[in-house]
Amino acid sequence: MAIGGVLRPGHAQIRVMNLEEGIHFYGNVLGLQETGRDAQGRVYFKAWDERDHSSVVIREADRAGIDHFAFKVQSKSVLSKLDSDLRAYGVNTEWVPAGEMLETGERVRFQVASGHMIELYADKGVVGNGLGMLNPEAWQPMAEKGIAPTRMDHCLLYGPDIEKVEALFRDVLGFYKVEHIVLEDDKTDLAIWLSCSIKAHDIAFVRHAVPGMLHHVSFLLDSWEKVLRAADLMSMNRVSIDIGPTRHGVTRGTTIYAFDPSGNRFETFAGGYQTYPDIPPIKWTMDEVGAAVFYHDRKLTPSFLEVVS
Amino acid sequence: MAIGGVLRPGHAQIRVMNLEEGIHFYGNVLGLQETGRDAQGRVYFKAWDERDHSSVVIREADRAGIDHFAFKVQSKSVLSKLDSDLRAYGVNTEWVPAGEMLETGERVRFQVASGHMIELYADKGVVGNGLGMLNPEAWQPMAEKGIAPTRMDHCLLYGPDIEKVEALFRDVLGFYKVEHIVLEDDKTDLAIWLSCSIKAHDIAFVRHAVPGMLHHVSFLLDSWEKVLRAADLMSMNRVSIDIGPTRHGVTRGTTIYAFDPSGNRFETFAGGYQTYPDIPPIKWTMDEVGAAVFYHDRKLTPSFLEVVS
Amino acid sequence: MAIGGVLRPGHAQIRVMNLEEGIHFYGNVLGLQETGRDAQGRVYFKAWDERDHSSVVIREADRAGIDHFAFKVQSKSVLSKLDSDLRAYGVNTEWVPAGEMLETGERVRFQVASGHMIELYADKGVVGNGLGMLNPEAWQPMAEKGIAPTRMDHCLLYGPDIEKVEALFRDVLGFYKVEHIVLEDDKTDLAIWLSCSIKAHDIAFVRHAVPGMLHHVSFLLDSWEKVLRAADLMSMNRVSIDIGPTRHGVTRGTTIYAFDPSGNRFETFAGGYQTYPDIPPIKWTMDEVGAAVFYHDRKLTPSFLEVVS
Amino acid sequence: MAIGGVLRPGHAQIRVMNLEEGIHFYGNVLGLQETGRDAQGRVYFKAWDERDHSSVVIREADRAGIDHFAFKVQSKSVLSKLDSDLRAYGVNTEWVPAGEMLETGERVRFQVASGHMIELYADKGVVGNGLGMLNPEAWQPMAEKGIAPTRMDHCLLYGPDIEKVEALFRDVLGFYKVEHIVLEDDKTDLAIWLSCSIKAHDIAFVRHAVPGMLHHVSFLLDSWEKVLRAADLMSMNRVSIDIGPTRHGVTRGTTIYAFDPSGNRFETFAGGYQTYPDIPPIKWTMDEVGAAVFYHDRKLTPSFLEVVS
Repeated sequence: MAIGGVLRPGHAQIRVMNLEEGIHFYGNVLGLQETGRDAQGRVYFKAWDERDHSSVVIREADRAGIDHFAFKVQSKSVLSKLDSDLRAYGVNTEWVPAGEMLETGERVRFQVASGHMIELYADKGVVGNGLGMLNPEAWQPMAEKGIAPTRMDHCLLYGPDIEKVEALFRDVLGFYKVEHIVLEDDKTDLAIWLSCSIKAHDIAFVRHAVPGMLHHVSFLLDSWEKVLRAADLMSMNRVSIDIGPTRHGVTRGTTIYAFDPSGNRFETFAGGYQTYPDIPPIKWTMDEVGAAVFYHDRKLTPSFLEVVS
Repeated sequence: MAIGGVLRPGHAQIRVMNLEEGIHFYGNVLGLQETGRDAQGRVYFKAWDERDHSSVVIREADRAGIDHFAFKVQSKSVLSKLDSDLRAYGVNTEWVPAGEMLETGERVRFQVASGHMIELYADKGVVGNGLGMLNPEAWQPMAEKGIAPTRMDHCLLYGPDIEKVEALFRDVLGFYKVEHIVLEDDKTDLAIWLSCSIKAHDIAFVRHAVPGMLHHVSFLLDSWEKVLRAADLMSMNRVSIDIGPTRHGVTRGTTIYAFDPSGNRFETFAGGYQTYPDIPPIKWTMDEVGAAVFYHDRKLTPSFLEVVS
Repeated sequence: MAIGGVLRPGHAQIRVMNLEEGIHFYGNVLGLQETGRDAQGRVYFKAWDERDHSSVVIREADRAGIDHFAFKVQSKSVLSKLDSDLRAYGVNTEWVPAGEMLETGERVRFQVASGHMIELYADKGVVGNGLGMLNPEAWQPMAEKGIAPTRMDHCLLYGPDIEKVEALFRDVLGFYKVEHIVLEDDKTDLAIWLSCSIKAHDIAFVRHAVPGMLHHVSFLLDSWEKVLRAADLMSMNRVSIDIGPTRHGVTRGTTIYAFDPSGNRFETFAGGYQTYPDIPPIKWTMDEVGAAVFYHDRKLTPSFLEVVS
Repeated sequence: MAIGGVLRPGHAQIRVMNLEEGIHFYGNVLGLQETGRDAQGRVYFKAWDERDHSSVVIREADRAGIDHFAFKVQSKSVLSKLDSDLRAYGVNTEWVPAGEMLETGERVRFQVASGHMIELYADKGVVGNGLGMLNPEAWQPMAEKGIAPTRMDHCLLYGPDIEKVEALFRDVLGFYKVEHIVLEDDKTDLAIWLSCSIKAHDIAFVRHAVPGMLHHVSFLLDSWEKVLRAADLMSMNRVSIDIGPTRHGVTRGTTIYAFDPSGNRFETFAGGYQTYPDIPPIKWTMDEVGAAVFYHDRKLTPSFLEVVS
């Protein structure tokens, strides 16, 4: 097997303060495609080039943030095996029944040391990307509705004990560390970027006192020119931009950070290198933490470290 | 394990008719970095963002073409396991000793039904990408020397019995089929694109009467603008362009096909979607084979099917 | 006065074989904005970032081609002055009354030696670019409807006696020659590119036995990535592409040539250098005529010289 | 005459605090080509695609800033005519003899109400862009040495009485106003952008209490991707970036502002629309001044208004 086990980020469930505002933002501004609403009032979206039913689920709540971040695994047997492995590792897992989320099979849910709820699932209804599987065109009108990322790509979560999170993702879920920022003691990681593929990150964590916080969910664009288009659309829609367009030192991706109407940060990015598990992690030190995060300015903005939801 | 087993295309050994001409072309025009020459007279190159010692090896010969195409696997134990699996599958394998190629560990070599020599190896000396592993810059001068692809990405091989090749790559090496072109009988594949990662292709085959032929080795560029720059440099260096800049229907990548001085076709490309093994293969039919290969013109050129080395 | 006199290409009146087909093509595929229809059955279009009423006018006819190409001049007094200058130069001019074309003031019409009808006018109704003149956004939805060029930019016309045309445009209208291709006799121009601004061309001519022929009308795009998008949309809409995406040696512009449903060639292009009248013309010789026209392939296609409408 | 009179920005003479540092910055980091040094110790540079001898001249001084900004005019007779016109307008002019600057003919120098020294000249030695005038390639290695703008494009100057400056540029030099920001009184301009061509600006002024100040000299890049490359090179060379990459609302250009080692701000930019003198100026009001300057963030940074040299 070359690629298998945990395949990719599957969906993020995000809390918004006002559902209608959230539907407008994720549907018309970010340009995701609404694929359903459930009895709980949750609204489901997918990016245009995704084939599965949903990658972003929003629900109305009193405060912003992320409920859980889920990965799609290769098969039901892999799901069972990973559940066993998690339990053997000492993690309490819970099975959420199929159908609790629209078009989504049973999920294995567990909390990691940083306080975040992570889920695994093997099945999600296929709605396709609108191009069909026979002689497809290269893209379609949905690719130009709003910012229109091609995929939900990864998330960055803030919380404590990220070395424990790294160990679990590495030892049980098969991720590897691609880059990290090391504190002045030269041994404690401030931030880690983890991959289950050849992407420079499928999930990332920053050490933070408060558990379970969301820094951003990230969406993939095709090019630096699409990053410019995204920034233009943010301006036209009066989206609050945190920083960007710029480039990250970590991953080399080009990026914009901005906020949804509830204050959840999101990223639209393009590029970044391909990597593999035989390459040791790239290390950043605190004297260059600015360049690690914002390559052009080479300095952190206060909001990057402080504002989470 | 999320990604493992066969990791990626490792190196291609290509025959050139005139070594000095080849060294100039691969080093100065394509812009690979020469990393060594061995006692046999072979010259080794790597793309600037690769970390391993070599990804293209050229040797002088009476006719152009490819000697073998090699994949890097995760570890020595994976290499042994794959050797056993290949033998169990009925494939004759040969162990090439470490050091037969510069900085390269022992290789498992075998022939596939299309007549091509495929190799697997676990170890290659690390020379790095010139940026270091500590607080790296985003790129470096080598990224602008010649066409300067970031990586050797994949190859397309022509030969018979590609359904047998597909079965071996799928069943033993863990690849999956991403796209295929089906002949008028609606069951025989004319062409197959196979992935061991989330790339739209790590290797591809086209059915052809003559075994062991090379259609092209492909090199990755960062963007459509770099594709333009590559075309400009080809013109300045009087490189013979087969077709492009254009886009493929298959993989959606943007591309140029051109020839090295010996007539070996190569590709410089950018883009293409991310894919996963849970997505069924995209199918193309012969009435749209033109769009499959050259999306803009929607028709094949004679040279695409006929000219191989 | 720094810029004045003849300001810019204003409109092209193009013959199409089927009006409905033409309306669909120019409106939905090329993505111009329809701005009116007149009693003669002509349909008027403008590119999204143009402010004047119309830059492309189509009318149904038995054969394709161009009726006339018009330039906007600075003012009515300039129009009168140019009419006098033309007559003094020995050119027969005709005044077409205001209103003969929708929202267009009186036009001075004359035939040049290549057999083409050229017009000058000073007034055209302003409809704006949809962004307003107060605190405008950077672009608007029309910028993504179809290929959506920003402007009609120039045309290339085929006919005899282009040295006489050049003299008239230079001596009376104030244009200057930016580039030219010289025949093997080293004195006769095969092709000339003329500018009345700092654009590398506002109009161009190729020597051709048949007078009054159209090679292409050209439309401006913002970037090489928009050229790719245009090629994609041409494929999706089954537009017949002549050549491209590629780059011209002349002007350095990146380009696609394609045909409207009636066989009128059009160009969508981006880039090209800025130039000024103090720079002498760049000269191309016939041994490099391929590179002059198609910089990447460095050879002419037969259709470039032969297919005109 | 279509284009004539004042043709374009010709050169800027900039004061640097340390000449060697300046030579390194303008030559290796910004990537201009050094074309000479004179007896006064001034060092001359041109951008790679310019053909005239020099467009940036630096001299060592105790404080940063701009000595003068010069425009090239069409001919000596135009130069004489403009001198007469300026004197008739009440402006004191001074003739600087030919040769006072290397390869530069006689210059007409005068001070405008904002306190800046403006110069006009008709002659400058031609050194070419390195591509020749016969069958040129599309670009050359200098196009990738450092940031490597194609041209020095315009400047933005800070000083008082900009309505008087506008009147002089309009009434005597033939410029027209393209955009302006109007103060809360709805009649006083805070900023004006003036063109003598079809560029969105050839020079611009911001109202400021202190006369003769430099906000920035601006250099043209080919594309938004070149803007990214410029930002990357600024980071690699530890250039202090003021803001960007981003887009301006005014002109729509994409941009980075940064500082030379002496604190002179410069801009590297791409894009911006084409405009003509028959289009009335676009107006911005103070409630949208943020979007006028920095379109994405829609707010001014303090440094934009305060830091000048």
